[in-house]
Amino acid sequence: MGRKRMQPLENLEFVADNGLLHRRTFLTGGGALATAMTGYAMRDTAFAEPLPVEPWMKISTADGFTPYGQPSKYESTVVREEMALAPNQLPGIGNQRSPIHLLNGTVTPNGLHFVRLHSGVPDIDPDKHKLLIHGLVERPLIFTAETLMRYPMESRLYFIECAGNGAPLYAKEPVKAGVQRIQGQISCADWTGVRVSTLLEETGIKPNAKWILAEGADAAGMSRSVPLSKIMDDALIALYQNGERLRPENGYPMQLLLPGYQGNTNVKYLRRINLTERPTMTRDETSRYSMTRPDGKTVQFYLQFDAKSVITQPAPELKLQGPGLYKITGLAWTGRGNGKIKKVEVSADGGKSWAEAMIQSQILPKAVVRFQMPWRWDGRPAILQSRATDETGYVQWTRDAMIAERGSTGTFNSNAITSWGINEKGEINHVFA
Amino acid sequence: MGRKRMQPLENLEFVADNGLLHRRTFLTGGGALATAMTGYAMRDTAFAEPLPVEPWMKISTADGFTPYGQPSKYESTVVREEMALAPNQLPGIGNQRSPIHLLNGTVTPNGLHFVRLHSGVPDIDPDKHKLLIHGLVERPLIFTAETLMRYPMESRLYFIECAGNGAPLYAKEPVKAGVQRIQGQISCADWTGVRVSTLLEETGIKPNAKWILAEGADAAGMSRSVPLSKIMDDALIALYQNGERLRPENGYPMQLLLPGYQGNTNVKYLRRINLTERPTMTRDETSRYSMTRPDGKTVQFYLQFDAKSVITQPAPELKLQGPGLYKITGLAWTGRGNGKIKKVEVSADGGKSWAEAMIQSQILPKAVVRFQMPWRWDGRPAILQSRATDETGYVQWTRDAMIAERGSTGTFNSNAITSWGINEKGEINHVFA
Repeated sequence: MGRKRMQPLENLEFVADNGLLHRRTFLTGGGALATAMTGYAMRDTAFAEPLPVEPWMKISTADGFTPYGQPSKYESTVVREEMALAPNQLPGIGNQRSPIHLLNGTVTPNGLHFVRLHSGVPDIDPDKHKLLIHGLVERPLIFTAETLMRYPMESRLYFIECAGNGAPLYAKEPVKAGVQRIQGQISCADWTGVRVSTLLEETGIKPNAKWILAEGADAAGMSRSVPLSKIMDDALIALYQNGERLRPENGYPMQLLLPGYQGNTNVKYLRRINLTERPTMTRDETSRYSMTRPDGKTVQFYLQFDAKSVITQPAPELKLQGPGLYKITGLAWTGRGNGKIKKVEVSADGGKSWAEAMIQSQILPKAVVRFQMPWRWDGRPAILQSRATDETGYVQWTRDAMIAERGSTGTFNSNAITSWGINEKGEINHVFA
Repeated sequence: MGRKRMQPLENLEFVADNGLLHRRTFLTGGGALATAMTGYAMRDTAFAEPLPVEPWMKISTADGFTPYGQPSKYESTVVREEMALAPNQLPGIGNQRSPIHLLNGTVTPNGLHFVRLHSGVPDIDPDKHKLLIHGLVERPLIFTAETLMRYPMESRLYFIECAGNGAPLYAKEPVKAGVQRIQGQISCADWTGVRVSTLLEETGIKPNAKWILAEGADAAGMSRSVPLSKIMDDALIALYQNGERLRPENGYPMQLLLPGYQGNTNVKYLRRINLTERPTMTRDETSRYSMTRPDGKTVQFYLQFDAKSVITQPAPELKLQGPGLYKITGLAWTGRGNGKIKKVEVSADGGKSWAEAMIQSQILPKAVVRFQMPWRWDGRPAILQSRATDETGYVQWTRDAMIAERGSTGTFNSNAITSWGINEKGEINHVFA
């Protein structure tokens, strides 16, 4: 009953060099997929009728009726990255990346949402937590979670990405790491909350208010300045994440949600919004989250993300098991314009030739989309890349272009094309190409 | 710093009797919401600048960096219903409902998805599990989860509802229970899997195949017959639920997903699909999931759900805290046509007058939508109802109409209007109206 690895592939239609296959390969009706995939399914020989009764079919159990369910014990490796504390850092400062090489679809389950904390998770009593809206308002007001529950809400699938996601692409040499480590600070959830504009209607806005300061109730007092125009456009006070209340590491009991903006501006444990004339220039936007360019100038408030994509499978964590037909899949997203991805292209030859991937999910504004592409690996070295284009016409840039513009000290908003180099053994490495 | 309960409401615009407010109350620009809600937010007096430093802001902690995150300790009551075994039933047969009165948005977190098991959760080794497609095919084939991973996938938000959800509406008297118990077998997730039609392209289909039998690898061997046309239309072999592999109680390692069809036809632990000429008439579709009508005829294979909605807040689990402005919210869904909800109406006087609710989420095919409606409770008895209409023009029916058609022995596919009776104390009860 051994699995045959490949069947002849002469019916396949190639769309770019080095084995990228026409999306038709994935569509029904043509027979090409059947031809291509026959080698992977098993003919029904050993497993013939009558069907064998597997051992797990002989036991009826009361297990499984748990108040709050957990993943299968067989999926115990599907976890967030272990946080490695830098030697000179205080406890509670760090990141945990999502295992995006093992996930599929678009939603990130709450237990695997990436984590970025500046002073650990504050133990906030939700009944005592207060949100103050003050500064250049007519009437400063305080809102509790209970109060906010009475307001109209909005539910949307939105991505959140850490500003430092993909930072290794600024390095001079490619880091030896997987996609979880390099690009795992991207997550997407169904967020539900109250529009900040609804609350500002109640407080009133003084004419000279142009910015806000958002401050968290963590020990770091994490705080960022954001243009008032963004707040009025689509900002939420998020109370629910995928249907349930926010997770502690994701801002419980409330988080500012700024669709398409740097993760750090989505201030967690939100305790106040201060309307101001100008940016407040807090420590978090001067010593951090600012970027010095090659010309010596420092750029601040590059808050909105440009279009980006990354291949999550194959990825360095996953070795190819010999030549044959593989599926390339990954995520794409953009914070620009209406937040919609227009297309994702894939290259198997390091960017020399490109072909358009299939989008397997719905395309929703400022949510991740999932793409896929059939690929026949011939066993020789290859370099896989993906490139997103959004509806504004913006095309994800190469690493070379990003370095030329921002230099190697950039650190943040790294949306350059990520390259996976595949060697003859099927091993996958992060490379610059 | 006491919270004032209400302010004068003379600016409010009523759209139906008994306090239902115009949706404009929820929209910015008019000032009506600000007027209505001012009583709920607190003026900034005691909580004046400089802002107090809360106790949780004084501690930096390394807590929160967990491999797989869990809900806040303050949300420990947000759990699935405890399963009550019937005295003569085997272990492993039962239901657990989602706490829909405490959730918001559209996605159900995986730990709270409703559970219906026929013989507990089988402990299936995912590397040994096999899916056989056989019967009226050209080439019977076996697929493992690993094999399926190479196929093109589709990701969609789909609801799954138990056929028995809302069954208490068939009873002669209203049960004394909450919305979780009565209507909590509805969940919605981002499902990712392989189209069954893709696999059938590979096996080939013999001309006389018109139905399939889907069988699970649980000890009950749960099995249902489904028309082949539905399978070819949009059926998936689901492998991922909200991004991660299926939860054990939801079918790990693979589940048949039939968007808009009765939950039980979404066979979990799927081990075979047998193409047949006619329905197989298994125990699960003769002794169960069939429905005897008042005229003595038994109806089988009423597989597709009609439009339905339910108010999740206010609900019997949640007592009103005195007269004032409240938000009514709930879920609506349909399995008919393109699976899209057109509108949801709300009544506060037991169905005498209706007003259209706001939809707070995106309207996606065969996914739940979330609606909301502002309501001013005057402290007198009221009956809250919701009524969904889908794009086919189907209007959710009353309980009286459903009973007239199906009788009190119906049990399944109960999509009648649910009524919450509110008494002068603010207590909420399930009533027939």
